[in-house]
Amino acid sequence: MNPPTTDLLAAPDAANDARGRPVTVIGLGAMGHTLARTFLAAGHPTTVWNRTASRADDLVADGATLADSVSAAVTAGPLIVVCVLDNDTTLSLLDPLGDELAGRAVVNLTSTTPEDARAFHTWATSRGVDHLDGAIMVPTPVVGTDDTLVLYSGAREVFDTHHATLASLGGTADYLGTDPGRAGLFDLGMLDVFFAGMTAFLHATAMVGADGIAPTTFLPYARTIVSVLDEVLPGLAAEVEAGSYPGDADNIAMELAAMEHVVRVSEARGIDTTLPEVTRRLLATAVEQGHGRDTFSRIVEQLRQPSA
Amino acid sequence: MNPPTTDLLAAPDAANDARGRPVTVIGLGAMGHTLARTFLAAGHPTTVWNRTASRADDLVADGATLADSVSAAVTAGPLIVVCVLDNDTTLSLLDPLGDELAGRAVVNLTSTTPEDARAFHTWATSRGVDHLDGAIMVPTPVVGTDDTLVLYSGAREVFDTHHATLASLGGTADYLGTDPGRAGLFDLGMLDVFFAGMTAFLHATAMVGADGIAPTTFLPYARTIVSVLDEVLPGLAAEVEAGSYPGDADNIAMELAAMEHVVRVSEARGIDTTLPEVTRRLLATAVEQGHGRDTFSRIVEQLRQPSA
Repeated sequence: MNPPTTDLLAAPDAANDARGRPVTVIGLGAMGHTLARTFLAAGHPTTVWNRTASRADDLVADGATLADSVSAAVTAGPLIVVCVLDNDTTLSLLDPLGDELAGRAVVNLTSTTPEDARAFHTWATSRGVDHLDGAIMVPTPVVGTDDTLVLYSGAREVFDTHHATLASLGGTADYLGTDPGRAGLFDLGMLDVFFAGMTAFLHATAMVGADGIAPTTFLPYARTIVSVLDEVLPGLAAEVEAGSYPGDADNIAMELAAMEHVVRVSEARGIDTTLPEVTRRLLATAVEQGHGRDTFSRIVEQLRQPSA
Repeated sequence: MNPPTTDLLAAPDAANDARGRPVTVIGLGAMGHTLARTFLAAGHPTTVWNRTASRADDLVADGATLADSVSAAVTAGPLIVVCVLDNDTTLSLLDPLGDELAGRAVVNLTSTTPEDARAFHTWATSRGVDHLDGAIMVPTPVVGTDDTLVLYSGAREVFDTHHATLASLGGTADYLGTDPGRAGLFDLGMLDVFFAGMTAFLHATAMVGADGIAPTTFLPYARTIVSVLDEVLPGLAAEVEAGSYPGDADNIAMELAAMEHVVRVSEARGIDTTLPEVTRRLLATAVEQGHGRDTFSRIVEQLRQPSA
């Protein structure tokens, strides 16, 4: 097909059309490559740079411009999207630049901790660079679809000025506030829940699998309880927020008995117990501390303290 | 109100109506009391027994019959529903009986391990008792509604004969097969996922809370990722079933980097790290074993082995 920019730039309203706005993508790993591909497909004049230039071959074939240096990449336009391995890599690429970045906007979609994002923000500000941090909450195949979710925090003006371009990534672009660490913090909070859920599902398949149950046989039951999990979260959040844990229907003593069963049944089948043991221990400690009649959410008070 | 059975028993088809079928409930803790209340409200002549008889007062006021002994309770009808603390309690009540139970059906809704359920089944069979094990997957306020889910396994004929009565508990009555341990096993597998998810949510609220984010502010993001969790489970189940873990979009090396961030960010905020550390360690071990390019589901192979 023709480079997608050609027709779009010829349209009468091209100057005001997001599709005509140039964007630079630095880093063409799996996610960076997907971002560049998505901007290109949405009609943005797209400049790319990657340490291994050949990663750009297919993008160039479809109309992207390959910059021969980081300096050339960042001066190609007002908006630079960075998606590299980590914060150290970001700084190793951008810190050696002179004032080429000053006055431009860097949207850093590299996975970072809140601390790294804040440190990068300080660095960017010291160089006159507008910085917006972002966290992509979906895997590469979803980017560009209505299911995309990208969290942003940091410079509000970058989000507002470049919103139309960022919207080309599809789905929801969610601005969380001026703290540049917030997008990364929410990202990690969500991953915390996501990975624990996946690990627990795999543990449960191992447990039922020991008795000859296929994972796909157990699957609908797991999905049912994930649906219940979704429904109880508002109640848990409200209890944590209120600091009140009234054990009306279920309580920690009952939940401890259930988790002891999970641990015992896992042990009896010779499978790993470390995951259920985490919750069992938290519940047992709550009972020891006299909270057996409280609700489950009480264990947040232990979780707020360093590991025992 | 009048005892709910009166009008119903007067109906022309009462003899064939499930509402007329008697049921005995042994154990009036929070769940047992709710079961008795639900059977009673559905029009079943309901006999109850509890060690502390006063727990039955409101049920008796509404038409239930209070048995003055376990023997009197079990001989009141063909179907005995047991919901007590644990398997030992069940046996302490039923084992001293003579042949009063022979030929009757015991539906044991007491929370048990699969091993306990199988042991009870052996005991019941030796006494000529038909035994169906059950696991109630919803909290007491949900029992009797369309959202009820009760898993059953064991004697198929008990499930079939008494299905109409058990259906009075509402929602879904799901028969999992003749292995009396299966209902309890699925129960524990579901709780495994449920409690890990709740603990992870509480941990995430502690993590974001350290930066001043309210639990209810984080809540919609948690619910979003729980929805994503639901969507990825079929893929995980298929990979585990196939024993194939192709890391196409995401892979363990990337996921390890994310979990290292979660652990580091938790540590930096002085909060407990044991939950994210479980998954971090599993992923790190997978990388050490050369599986960094596989998908997350690969860790099931570690989970199938005893804890390191």
